[in-house]
Amino acid sequence: MTDGQAPYKLAAIDLGSNSFHMIVAQIDAFGQVNVLDRLRESVRLGGGLDAKGNLGKAAQQRAVDCLRRFGERIRDFPSDNVAAVGTNTLRQSRNARDFLHLAEAALGHPIAVISGREEARLIYLGVAHSLARDQQGKRFVMDIGGGSTELIIGQGFEPLHLESLRMGCVSSSRAFFPDGKLGKACWDKAITAAQLELRPIKASYREIGWESATGASGTIRAVKKVIQQTGLAPYGITLEHMYKVRDMMIDAGHVDKLKLAGLSDERKPVFAGGLAVLIATFEALKIDRMYVSDGALREGLIYDRLERYQHDDIRDKTVRALQQRFQVNQAYAEAVQKTAHKLFNRCRDDWKLPGHLSQLLCWAADLHEVGLAISHSSYHKHGGYLLANADLPGFSTEEQRWLSVLVRTHRQKLSSKLFELLDAEHYQNALYLSVLLRLAVLLHRSHKEAAPRIERLKLGKNRMEVQFLDDVRGKKPLLLADLEREQAFLKAVKFELVF
Amino acid sequence: MTDGQAPYKLAAIDLGSNSFHMIVAQIDAFGQVNVLDRLRESVRLGGGLDAKGNLGKAAQQRAVDCLRRFGERIRDFPSDNVAAVGTNTLRQSRNARDFLHLAEAALGHPIAVISGREEARLIYLGVAHSLARDQQGKRFVMDIGGGSTELIIGQGFEPLHLESLRMGCVSSSRAFFPDGKLGKACWDKAITAAQLELRPIKASYREIGWESATGASGTIRAVKKVIQQTGLAPYGITLEHMYKVRDMMIDAGHVDKLKLAGLSDERKPVFAGGLAVLIATFEALKIDRMYVSDGALREGLIYDRLERYQHDDIRDKTVRALQQRFQVNQAYAEAVQKTAHKLFNRCRDDWKLPGHLSQLLCWAADLHEVGLAISHSSYHKHGGYLLANADLPGFSTEEQRWLSVLVRTHRQKLSSKLFELLDAEHYQNALYLSVLLRLAVLLHRSHKEAAPRIERLKLGKNRMEVQFLDDVRGKKPLLLADLEREQAFLKAVKFELVF
Repeated sequence: MTDGQAPYKLAAIDLGSNSFHMIVAQIDAFGQVNVLDRLRESVRLGGGLDAKGNLGKAAQQRAVDCLRRFGERIRDFPSDNVAAVGTNTLRQSRNARDFLHLAEAALGHPIAVISGREEARLIYLGVAHSLARDQQGKRFVMDIGGGSTELIIGQGFEPLHLESLRMGCVSSSRAFFPDGKLGKACWDKAITAAQLELRPIKASYREIGWESATGASGTIRAVKKVIQQTGLAPYGITLEHMYKVRDMMIDAGHVDKLKLAGLSDERKPVFAGGLAVLIATFEALKIDRMYVSDGALREGLIYDRLERYQHDDIRDKTVRALQQRFQVNQAYAEAVQKTAHKLFNRCRDDWKLPGHLSQLLCWAADLHEVGLAISHSSYHKHGGYLLANADLPGFSTEEQRWLSVLVRTHRQKLSSKLFELLDAEHYQNALYLSVLLRLAVLLHRSHKEAAPRIERLKLGKNRMEVQFLDDVRGKKPLLLADLEREQAFLKAVKFELVF
Repeated sequence: MTDGQAPYKLAAIDLGSNSFHMIVAQIDAFGQVNVLDRLRESVRLGGGLDAKGNLGKAAQQRAVDCLRRFGERIRDFPSDNVAAVGTNTLRQSRNARDFLHLAEAALGHPIAVISGREEARLIYLGVAHSLARDQQGKRFVMDIGGGSTELIIGQGFEPLHLESLRMGCVSSSRAFFPDGKLGKACWDKAITAAQLELRPIKASYREIGWESATGASGTIRAVKKVIQQTGLAPYGITLEHMYKVRDMMIDAGHVDKLKLAGLSDERKPVFAGGLAVLIATFEALKIDRMYVSDGALREGLIYDRLERYQHDDIRDKTVRALQQRFQVNQAYAEAVQKTAHKLFNRCRDDWKLPGHLSQLLCWAADLHEVGLAISHSSYHKHGGYLLANADLPGFSTEEQRWLSVLVRTHRQKLSSKLFELLDAEHYQNALYLSVLLRLAVLLHRSHKEAAPRIERLKLGKNRMEVQFLDDVRGKKPLLLADLEREQAFLKAVKFELVF
């Protein structure tokens, strides 16, 4: 973060499956968001995925070119003030990592891939901020992307219920209107398939209910525009009007012959699939009318960054919620966390640890016993599994991987293989963090007594020499035995522990 | 189970790392247990484990010979009345499955491998039944096996806190007294190592506390006997007396020169390690005095079987507790379970499904959504992971594997690989059960409405033809689409679904 002085600027970039968006906003002294710039480029990244899930060279090039243009605008921003995220296409793509390296270099800032549910959370945040603040009651918000559809019920700025389903305007158009033909049978199949996806959540969503329904994203905006401009209705979307649009499309017979007022040429190839998803959702969830919001993922990113800036980081809440859900002993976790934090500060300069890793280490310490909820035996493995797979609002998938690796490696045997969930370039820092967490846990092993105090730490590359205040060799045989065992564990990853 | 008429007989066999035990008991009309027979043979199964964790041929032969002798005594017992379990050595052994086939053939009954914590639970049950019924307050119970030590705090017949630590008389003797020398330094190392194992649980155990401490197993009985017969004390074990025994052993200098009244030749080679574990436990947990119980794992097995017999199966409680801990929607799970159960009954004859699988299918249905606690996406995978790894009191590791496989395969793509957690010989039945659970879940997919009724099922090998009461093709497009998708999933495992 910058020095915390308002006004300051934040940027949000959304690497969508269809288009890339960027907004740049200025935050004033009252925390108000004023959007300075909105950029949008049609990159069609999702179209570049081949059957094996690899992103093709051409699509990568289009993306990199776009990001370079975006990057120019925010070259001088501190990276903490830039939130850039990839969604469904990058979640699905097998070579996302290689692409992300190129993409980050072009943008000049890190790019995080986020899960479908995290995307849903951010969309809700963006949409909720675009709606009237005095609106009471529950809100239903949906967004149809290229390959996923997010459905959220929330209240105020708080999402209560999130889902991300694997269907979108691109995937549905490809599956059910592959050759551009728009016959009735294709529509029936597309709508039934979407309803099948909605089926498991239908009952619970209808039970919770809502007062108003809002849509975001290009598909829904396009549907609204067509309804408006063909003269069907002045605002809002209803099932009846969508049926009429569908019937006009059936009459046209083929995408190439389609002439709908308000529908851009760019939207045409993916419009039928998107409309089918929207119709199915209206039918399944019995939505009467939907209004369209300008807010979306990118606005959500800005508000999420703003909250972090104001020390109201959703990730802290997520960690506490996880501790509660899996009954972590919070007092003990906090003791370990504080020791880990102190150790980090004593080592950061010598080991050149990037500052943002401090937070990750603390969260890993908060959660290092989370696997106990599954079983005492090998609980570090269960914790690693949980953190790799749980829904963690606010965390990117990369951050989840860090937490998973740190918890997985916080005790027992070590090997470099255990770090493979992370990019090879992060191995050294991840190992250092793991050593620090292991040491913190070791120092608190007795659970009760205060941790033995360290007088001096002497650090080198893959080396740590610990001098305790007490005479460990003479007076603390248990701690000594524990340190000797740790020494042997660390030796397996070529890290030398001396005491 | 037999016809449920008392009196009836139950047998329990404990394939321990050191000796095998069998008891045969008669249960009278009042549910009283009268032990008719106690058999014990020194098999030293644990000694047969090589460095790679494979059971050697000689040890396997000793075990099979012993089990054949045991088996003769209980040849005519229904298998439901025989509880035979393997513990630490079989948990550790890599070729346990091959051995178990031979062992089961020799015994004439199935043998289950149980986890360390399940072992602890059963030991507590056995010991608690051997103690005075009117004893109030919490009880500490411990058992030192060949390769694991179980520590339990309980009240009445209910264990409250269970641990199984990886240290035992055989492993400790091997590690710290490998050549039979009994010097002071060896004792210090052995005791410190055991204390290191105890360290993570020390604080919580002492915090909970107990009124009385009871020990079971050969090691603890031998310690008591030595203390008695060397004239140190008439009953009970204290730290002071154990130190004296240790000092006598240090004076002797070597196992071969050891002459301790009450110590059998057979016990000698593993006595030092066992005593070191017991001393460390007294020190760490500040135990004043321990009394010795005749009850043990095998008695626990008898009482556990008796409870099942009386329809008070601990496994039902475990499933309900797991549903609660991971917030499963119980009403929905029950609806699926009932449908699965009905389907099982309609298919059991044609598919020749063994009756006991019905219970496993129902439990899997009860728990099929347990993975939702981790994440909505791929929750069947998370459920499979949870059930493979969670502590499930009352379940054998084999039963856990069944539950894990059934939950893992209850939706989405299927492949024969997903069944590999189970023995190949179980593949066909596991596939049938999986098909039934999938169909039950599919029929309840809408969560709300009653399941569509099936008029007729026509069954063949890897084939099921379903005729619904309603006109699915005409009137239920969603169910039809779901069935079509299921048809494709099942085709991948060569199962033909027709409707």
